[in-house]
Amino acid sequence: MKTGSRIVAAFASAILCAYTGLAQPAGAPAGQQAQTRGGAAQVRSPEITPQGTVTFRLSAPNATSVLVRNTSGGFLDWPGGNETAMTKGDNGVWSATIGPLKPEYYVYVFVVDGVQTLDPQNIFHVRDGQRYGNALRIAGEFSRGYALNEVPHGTVHLVWYPSPALKLTRRLYVYTPPGYETGTARYPVFYLLHGGGGDEDAWTTLGRAPEIMDNLIAQGKAKPMIVVMTNENSNQIAAPSVVAPLPTSGPGNPMQGTAML
Amino acid sequence: MKTGSRIVAAFASAILCAYTGLAQPAGAPAGQQAQTRGGAAQVRSPEITPQGTVTFRLSAPNATSVLVRNTSGGFLDWPGGNETAMTKGDNGVWSATIGPLKPEYYVYVFVVDGVQTLDPQNIFHVRDGQRYGNALRIAGEFSRGYALNEVPHGTVHLVWYPSPALKLTRRLYVYTPPGYETGTARYPVFYLLHGGGGDEDAWTTLGRAPEIMDNLIAQGKAKPMIVVMTNENSNQIAAPSVVAPLPTSGPGNPMQGTAML
Repeated sequence: MKTGSRIVAAFASAILCAYTGLAQPAGAPAGQQAQTRGGAAQVRSPEITPQGTVTFRLSAPNATSVLVRNTSGGFLDWPGGNETAMTKGDNGVWSATIGPLKPEYYVYVFVVDGVQTLDPQNIFHVRDGQRYGNALRIAGEFSRGYALNEVPHGTVHLVWYPSPALKLTRRLYVYTPPGYETGTARYPVFYLLHGGGGDEDAWTTLGRAPEIMDNLIAQGKAKPMIVVMTNENSNQIAAPSVVAPLPTSGPGNPMQGTAML
Repeated sequence: MKTGSRIVAAFASAILCAYTGLAQPAGAPAGQQAQTRGGAAQVRSPEITPQGTVTFRLSAPNATSVLVRNTSGGFLDWPGGNETAMTKGDNGVWSATIGPLKPEYYVYVFVVDGVQTLDPQNIFHVRDGQRYGNALRIAGEFSRGYALNEVPHGTVHLVWYPSPALKLTRRLYVYTPPGYETGTARYPVFYLLHGGGGDEDAWTTLGRAPEIMDNLIAQGKAKPMIVVMTNENSNQIAAPSVVAPLPTSGPGNPMQGTAML
């Protein structure tokens, strides 16, 4: 057990060591910055009003240009344009207010001096293929459809299976509906395929299929069913965020150097 | 099905629309930049040699200061220090080379003009509590212990359960060993608790417990077992990257405005 024990101990230390860096200022008024013990300025971002107006903020005293970019896709345009310049306050905090936005689920990034950056105050990251962005949800009847609501939840299983055709062991996700584990009922199976750039993880973490299924089943709008979400890319054994694609993806693939395999 | 169908259609469009943005230059030599159709400069980062030397690169022609920071934790210090200034090339690409590093699993970020940024060329993101970083693995005997190797893999289940004590429905992760689904054997259960700042997701995505268990079981160093990974934070129904913590986390919590609940 030596190697395994060392590894477990190392990660336990990592998780514990991280704690002191996690303290958040309690009670800091919205939009004002506070100093953490580490000295980093903390601001609230995004701040969403009940009317759907969104204020983005970034502490960047040394930056010369900051903008916020809507990367949700063209069918979710922001009123006033999909790039908004942020303005610098006396305290070094850049901000911009947009909207009101209609109730939906949006993805955005910041661009700091030309470099695309995630919002350090927003823990909701989503991956769309090889790109990351921050998510925000404007509450409302429509966006409740893919929110985690107080309804029975299904289970998501991350399963490895042998593919004789590709001679690979590959990963897929399976959603089983509420009650699956405790009953003996048989369910229809829905194979939910991703689009270009997606993978077996896309429908669950970007597409929110488990929340959508939970909600539709709870409302009686869908029969309880099993949903199988596969990876359609023959050079991937799993999402590229987990394992680097096989070399057939081309010598220029920037991820080869960081293969987790 | 109207609402559900609209949502499914919207996300299908999102996933498809993303495709044109995903093209990577094929065959671009390491370290040289190429133009994508979108005009963004692409570089290779991190580039890891067989000897464990790592070169980080970031295209940031307009930045005035870029550094790379080791956020792995103190037990994984980098030789030469945990912050290394990157130098700007004529092409606007900043770079720094460190190491050789010992075979391990490291986490790092860039700091661009004072703003912490993830490496846009490295798709491996890891979350440590409320902080994100990029992961890189130096291949070697030790780090094989938590790599995804060609051994039988267990299944990870994302399960919601009722907590009578907290009067909440909460999420936990369960690892079942290879062969669990197809057999009738009973297994011991290992409750693997996270440290401060962690949650039910920490041991799987940051701590790589499923890969560690797969490897130990394959080597005969651990008995096949079920591993249950819970969330020890009584104000969380799930990891804060999935659902914002309940208001008991304090009025200053920067995530309240983006609640996915």
